Amino acid sequence: MKESQTIAAISTPPGEGGIGIIRISGAEALSIGAKILRHPSGKQIKSWPERVVRLGYVVDQDNEPIDEVIYFYFKERRSYTGEDLLEIQGHGGYQNLKKILTTVFQAGARPAEPGEFTKRAFLNGRLDLTQAEAVIDLIRARTDLAQRVALNQLRGRLAQVIKEQEEKLMALLVPIEAALDFPEDEIPELQRNEALNEVNNVRQRLKQLLDSADRGIILRDAATVVIAGRPNVGKSSLLNQLLGEERAIVTPIPGTTRDFVSEIIDLEGVPVRLIDTAGVRQSDDPVEKAGVEKARQLMTEADLVLAIFDAATPLTPEDHALIDFLSAKPALIILNKTDLPVQVTVESLQSAFPQAKFLSISALTGAGINELKTLIRDELIGSEGLAEQPALVTRVRHKEAIEEAIELLTLVVQGIAEEWSEDLLAVNLRAALDALGQISGRAVSEEIINEIFAQFCIGK
Amino acid sequence: MKESQTIAAISTPPGEGGIGIIRISGAEALSIGAKILRHPSGKQIKSWPERVVRLGYVVDQDNEPIDEVIYFYFKERRSYTGEDLLEIQGHGGYQNLKKILTTVFQAGARPAEPGEFTKRAFLNGRLDLTQAEAVIDLIRARTDLAQRVALNQLRGRLAQVIKEQEEKLMALLVPIEAALDFPEDEIPELQRNEALNEVNNVRQRLKQLLDSADRGIILRDAATVVIAGRPNVGKSSLLNQLLGEERAIVTPIPGTTRDFVSEIIDLEGVPVRLIDTAGVRQSDDPVEKAGVEKARQLMTEADLVLAIFDAATPLTPEDHALIDFLSAKPALIILNKTDLPVQVTVESLQSAFPQAKFLSISALTGAGINELKTLIRDELIGSEGLAEQPALVTRVRHKEAIEEAIELLTLVVQGIAEEWSEDLLAVNLRAALDALGQISGRAVSEEIINEIFAQFCIGK
Repeated sequence: MKESQTIAAISTPPGEGGIGIIRISGAEALSIGAKILRHPSGKQIKSWPERVVRLGYVVDQDNEPIDEVIYFYFKERRSYTGEDLLEIQGHGGYQNLKKILTTVFQAGARPAEPGEFTKRAFLNGRLDLTQAEAVIDLIRARTDLAQRVALNQLRGRLAQVIKEQEEKLMALLVPIEAALDFPEDEIPELQRNEALNEVNNVRQRLKQLLDSADRGIILRDAATVVIAGRPNVGKSSLLNQLLGEERAIVTPIPGTTRDFVSEIIDLEGVPVRLIDTAGVRQSDDPVEKAGVEKARQLMTEADLVLAIFDAATPLTPEDHALIDFLSAKPALIILNKTDLPVQVTVESLQSAFPQAKFLSISALTGAGINELKTLIRDELIGSEGLAEQPALVTRVRHKEAIEEAIELLTLVVQGIAEEWSEDLLAVNLRAALDALGQISGRAVSEEIINEIFAQFCIGK
Repeated sequence: MKESQTIAAISTPPGEGGIGIIRISGAEALSIGAKILRHPSGKQIKSWPERVVRLGYVVDQDNEPIDEVIYFYFKERRSYTGEDLLEIQGHGGYQNLKKILTTVFQAGARPAEPGEFTKRAFLNGRLDLTQAEAVIDLIRARTDLAQRVALNQLRGRLAQVIKEQEEKLMALLVPIEAALDFPEDEIPELQRNEALNEVNNVRQRLKQLLDSADRGIILRDAATVVIAGRPNVGKSSLLNQLLGEERAIVTPIPGTTRDFVSEIIDLEGVPVRLIDTAGVRQSDDPVEKAGVEKARQLMTEADLVLAIFDAATPLTPEDHALIDFLSAKPALIILNKTDLPVQVTVESLQSAFPQAKFLSISALTGAGINELKTLIRDELIGSEGLAEQPALVTRVRHKEAIEEAIELLTLVVQGIAEEWSEDLLAVNLRAALDALGQISGRAVSEEIINEIFAQFCIGK
């Protein structure tokens, strides 16, 4: 899998800044460096002490200086990519970095693809796949909490848990496969009770991971929270309260939908996308019907629905339509306008939502808003510290692989109990291992690897 | 002037990128590093070898890891700022860099002002003021040529020329001032002939600098080129040809003016802002009158006017109005539509523009466009290689100081010839030196220094 070509890219964000970085990774990093870098005196560079920062110039093919830079070099055994790596820091302007990069290409490097530096780090065994994925999650993290979770993953917390389970399953599988391959050898028979215990342990640990997966995925991808309620119930005021200073200027465009979708906001550490929908009133008007249909769909797909009712006005038919629609969905029931004389009480709604949480607020005065934020957070990711968990699943890809592994291990448990043949057990154990190998990257197709790194930025 | 507080800032552009840099400069750089950086093992960092790149973690006040980073340290005698300088490279996301920077502030640094790192480099004598100014010019350079000229200035070409003139004047001034201060000492009298030669030499060198100043300023600031001509003469087609692929989508907004102002384009190395104006037709309509007035003003202020005429149609009264207005201004006269049967010849226009350059083109077919670009370039910055000049003035500030110095030296020449008293000569020599000191930064007010660095980006 080892890549042969030397790659280069600008690794700092585009735009104007004091410093820009160009990285060159691969076997030719040093020979390219020798072509384009010069001592401040103008002399060729003969020695390349590792990890020492030096001042110099980048020169073009005519030996004309392009930029004053600092640079340093990592040998492959200590570099990020696991290859020889040369980093050049120039002045951070577009013209400048473009010129340096062009010179680097002329000297023999090719443009790096998105995420290719990290991909090489993975292919060279510097990171497992969960750690490689954490690199981009760390860069893109939208909240402090998401950033901490990504850093934990980069530091190998998830990798470690997966690796432990892989090792346990491998320890079971190896003797079975050996016995199958060399039936004449005297290999001790499978200790079925011990094996059952071990498989159950692994399954248990994977189920724990699965339990936190939805919350982890929300941290990485952002939660979708839909605000529902009839007109004048106070949706806009609530939206403004939740958006706080991050409120975007909204130009309402009349049409089939009045949906408002916010930028992703940081709601007590949870990245949240707020959607304000049209109501769910019954109507014969086809345009309005389409809007209602859309609202129902958004509510069905949401991670959480905030259903708002006006505490100061008796429930209307439209309120009742919302109640009917939501009764079986994860929702927070909010009684707004509690600054006015109350006509609708929590009690009167409780029978309609036997499982829901209730909160009385005043979007006008701000009363109850902080409690609401905490309640939303708890509904989405729970109240325990997610960042303190030993390992957390934050990608659908991981979640699905764990589900698959659990299913296969359940078959193995059944097989042990029912005394299936050892080769049938081996097949299922191997399949469970491969499912986990999709997470760690030990057993993953090149297609999926490419898909993962294609989501990276160039230069990482 | 030495600054005492330790400063810190993100030195890479804002936005998403693989790597972000935080720099910490000042006496406390290392003690802050010791507070927030840890070995990969989690241990405190005891030794700080200079210029060695190391891997580690940034931790927050609770010793919790914030990011995996590499970092290195320059002692003041070798650093960019002339102070202890610590550079930390973290992952390039917003949340991440914000968290690291916050931790750095909590550990004792204060936010750096725009350009403050370079300002300190200047105040600590690492760069003269022309070199410091070149730093931001290099970052902001819009064309390859502008970038090369900025790099020359950063490498001290202008600084060197100014310094040489300062030294020559100083060598003249010192004995005069000594004679004035200690009249009883036996100091040889001013050798008037030698002095005259030397002052004339300096004045000559400064005049050379001045000669290239307008072209240098254009490279740094961009030239304004106004396209003038009556409707249907082919201005839009010409504009499109010149803009090439950089053409912005233009929505014409009807109103008192039809001016179109382009983004700055790279015209054979010259940064150029194109303006397409309304014509200069005589009119009694007040709105149209205002538009004509604006067009005249734009043409008067432009670095160059491209006056377009339709070769295929006899000149109209509006064409003649433009001819009358432009006759005394720097303009290129362009005969467009030469793909059609010609009704207006270059010869017929030549008497109206005895000094102007002429060119026949077809904006439709593209014929003559490359010649036009070269002609525009030559009109703006000449045909010799500006980047190869030993020194170039690129700021109005420098130009004005040189003009002032030349004026004062002209007085000195006059004074030597007319045998003015030595104290009067000394006053004028000193004033000329101070004018040059405004360029080098040797004699410049804090106000001007602050003004210069306020134009920098933060982190540089």
